[in-house]
Amino acid sequence: MDYNATTPVDSEVLGAITASLTGAWGNPSSSHEAGLAAKSIIDEARENVARMVGAKTSDIVFTSGGTEYFHKSHDRQNGVDFSKGDNTDSLPHFITSNLEHDSVKLVLEHFAEEGLAKVSFVPASQTTGCVEVEDIVSSIRPTTCMITVMLANNETGVIQPIKEICERVQQINANRRNQPPILLHTDAAQAIGKINVDVLDLDVDYLTIVGHKFYAPRNGAIYVRNLEEKGAPLYPMLYGGGQERNYRPGTENTAMIAGLGKAAELVVQNLDKYQKHMEEVRDHLEVRLMEEFGDNIHFNGKFDTSSRLPNTCDKVLSKCNIVQASVGAACHSQNRASPILLAIGVPDSIARNALRLSVGRETTLSDIDFVISDLKQAVQYLQNQAT
Amino acid sequence: MDYNATTPVDSEVLGAITASLTGAWGNPSSSHEAGLAAKSIIDEARENVARMVGAKTSDIVFTSGGTEYFHKSHDRQNGVDFSKGDNTDSLPHFITSNLEHDSVKLVLEHFAEEGLAKVSFVPASQTTGCVEVEDIVSSIRPTTCMITVMLANNETGVIQPIKEICERVQQINANRRNQPPILLHTDAAQAIGKINVDVLDLDVDYLTIVGHKFYAPRNGAIYVRNLEEKGAPLYPMLYGGGQERNYRPGTENTAMIAGLGKAAELVVQNLDKYQKHMEEVRDHLEVRLMEEFGDNIHFNGKFDTSSRLPNTCDKVLSKCNIVQASVGAACHSQNRASPILLAIGVPDSIARNALRLSVGRETTLSDIDFVISDLKQAVQYLQNQAT
Ligand SMILES: Cc1ncc(COP(=O)(O)O)c(C=O)c1O
Ligand SMILES: Cc1ncc(COP(=O)(O)O)c(C=O)c1O
Repeated sequence: MDYNATTPVDSEVLGAITASLTGAWGNPSSSHEAGLAAKSIIDEARENVARMVGAKTSDIVFTSGGTEYFHKSHDRQNGVDFSKGDNTDSLPHFITSNLEHDSVKLVLEHFAEEGLAKVSFVPASQTTGCVEVEDIVSSIRPTTCMITVMLANNETGVIQPIKEICERVQQINANRRNQPPILLHTDAAQAIGKINVDVLDLDVDYLTIVGHKFYAPRNGAIYVRNLEEKGAPLYPMLYGGGQERNYRPGTENTAMIAGLGKAAELVVQNLDKYQKHMEEVRDHLEVRLMEEFGDNIHFNGKFDTSSRLPNTCDKVLSKCNIVQASVGAACHSQNRASPILLAIGVPDSIARNALRLSVGRETTLSDIDFVISDLKQAVQYLQNQAT
Repeated sequence: MDYNATTPVDSEVLGAITASLTGAWGNPSSSHEAGLAAKSIIDEARENVARMVGAKTSDIVFTSGGTEYFHKSHDRQNGVDFSKGDNTDSLPHFITSNLEHDSVKLVLEHFAEEGLAKVSFVPASQTTGCVEVEDIVSSIRPTTCMITVMLANNETGVIQPIKEICERVQQINANRRNQPPILLHTDAAQAIGKINVDVLDLDVDYLTIVGHKFYAPRNGAIYVRNLEEKGAPLYPMLYGGGQERNYRPGTENTAMIAGLGKAAELVVQNLDKYQKHMEEVRDHLEVRLMEEFGDNIHFNGKFDTSSRLPNTCDKVLSKCNIVQASVGAACHSQNRASPILLAIGVPDSIARNALRLSVGRETTLSDIDFVISDLKQAVQYLQNQAT
């Protein structure tokens, strides 16, 4: 019940990984047969990942995971050389939300602390769980170089209005004179494999893809608009053997890339099915929760006007025995009251006990019944302790 | 015949990877059972990697590959803030050899080009294939913050005098007043799994471990002396969910780490056996080459006074049909005359045709006979073409 933290690898993905580990272990940069076999696996994976997000193959760069991607797109944004910024007014300005994952939030906090950039953390609305388009737009300054807002939140599952933000910002870009366009990044870690994600429809410049959230292994990729044609800029963080067109050097992790490609292929083929299944199971969960716990339940992610991921339910209860769910954000090392829930207006005392339940492709209705009975036991136990 | 470019994963390593992908796919940061299982796999792997290089467990940080490690240890060296260096004389100074892999060389070239640091590329001796201790020592300046020389070269297999360099530099450090000690880094990518590597015996501050050179997958680790006790400094390149004690955030790639740990365990158990076997096979290769091609062969890596890796043979011949060997360094994207061979005094025309042959754990004597007959055919073919 904690599939937003991570997913297992799909059995077909496992097959692709082991096939590549045993059959294509050559160095993809070597010109001999073993190297070429590895290279062709990487090419195919790139096509599948591109297809999954509606991108051109040449716009995809493989990297080591979600945390790395964000850095790549933000490093030395817009050609602004951070090291030369001594005039505070001319510092590059970033806009983001207060709902972001640490892999985005901490980078921008670091930029701000080191005096490398200015950052606006736009608060999400407490009635919608979304960051509002108008709030983003009104934060734009002449020095704004990038806006980064996640596509769907990992705790509440609420889908953010990225398409609308991009539409407004592209209009502003069209009228921006003597300034480089504002670049748009979205962290699609939680959206991919759960809802349809299309980079052209969203109209973003950068999009982060994190394998282990959609039954792929723990690597990922970044989409960069028209990378080959010198569209959105991308600065390498590393220097090395020239792999990934120099954008991400280091001998390619063929097996992980093969797994990512296979997982992408599965999403292209089966997204509708996955989506319907997860929605059915999650809805059943919520119905059963209401039946059993009634008014003692608070749905953090259920805002009437906002759409949310098909697999995520967010309700308030303390730890339970057996069900593996997550207290707070599971991809963090420490347990603390979730800043995301606080950001959307959940009181601290309630946020501390929030239990995030997220279902996966193979969660069944009878799993849900098991979960409910486990939760009942846990609540019973806690009530007995309290008395 | 190209095991220095990359190795297959050992079957036990594959077993550890698939076991972890299927049985321990939880997020290692989650506090529930699936998360704890993943965490304990990571802990065990860290112990095995530490044991392999004679380090404390807490001195090992897992990362995504060889190219990444080097950056980590060199980023903001010695607390020197590159961005504030406007006085050329006070720029931090690095010393390295002209034999390094691009993952080291290009970083330092980048520092030098951007005016962030001064770098001395000390040329290797053409009689030994080694960088000489005295040449390193005489390059030291008051601003020297780090010395980085590889433990064994990927093309010639020549083992560099790291222990001797460290001994001298530690003496200098002991007498250095008002300056931070000079830090020592070695890239042990090619040495591990082939010769004994012990960080205390070498007396280095940082050591780079690259999985895919010793039958592990394409990830790795960096050793940092007394990391926990604030010994050698390490600055994170990434910001994120706090994993790897914040030194390398991003959800851990449990399966790859499990594979690295298993490969390290195998090295601890079997290094002697691997070493003897590779040496026997490589020596047989060289004897047979001499028998067949006699004076037409030039051994690039055979310097009478230098030790070399047990698996590497470097001889001059052009491409051949079937044997998968590497023209130049195989971990690079382009084919060109090897700068390493040029650096050790091999003439350009010969260096262009150098064929690097490196054997692995499972290469047999009869594989060698096959290689020899393939090479004979290739040479025959080339001679026919030339006439
Ligand atoms: C929204 C979001 N973005 C980014 C990430 C970063 O992923 P990783 O820890 O794999 O680098 C995660 C989860 O871990 C996430 O939930
Ligand atoms: C000596 C040496 N150092 C470092 C590396 C870097 O490894 P990677 O390309 O896996 O990052 C390699 C080989 O690829 C190497 O031969």
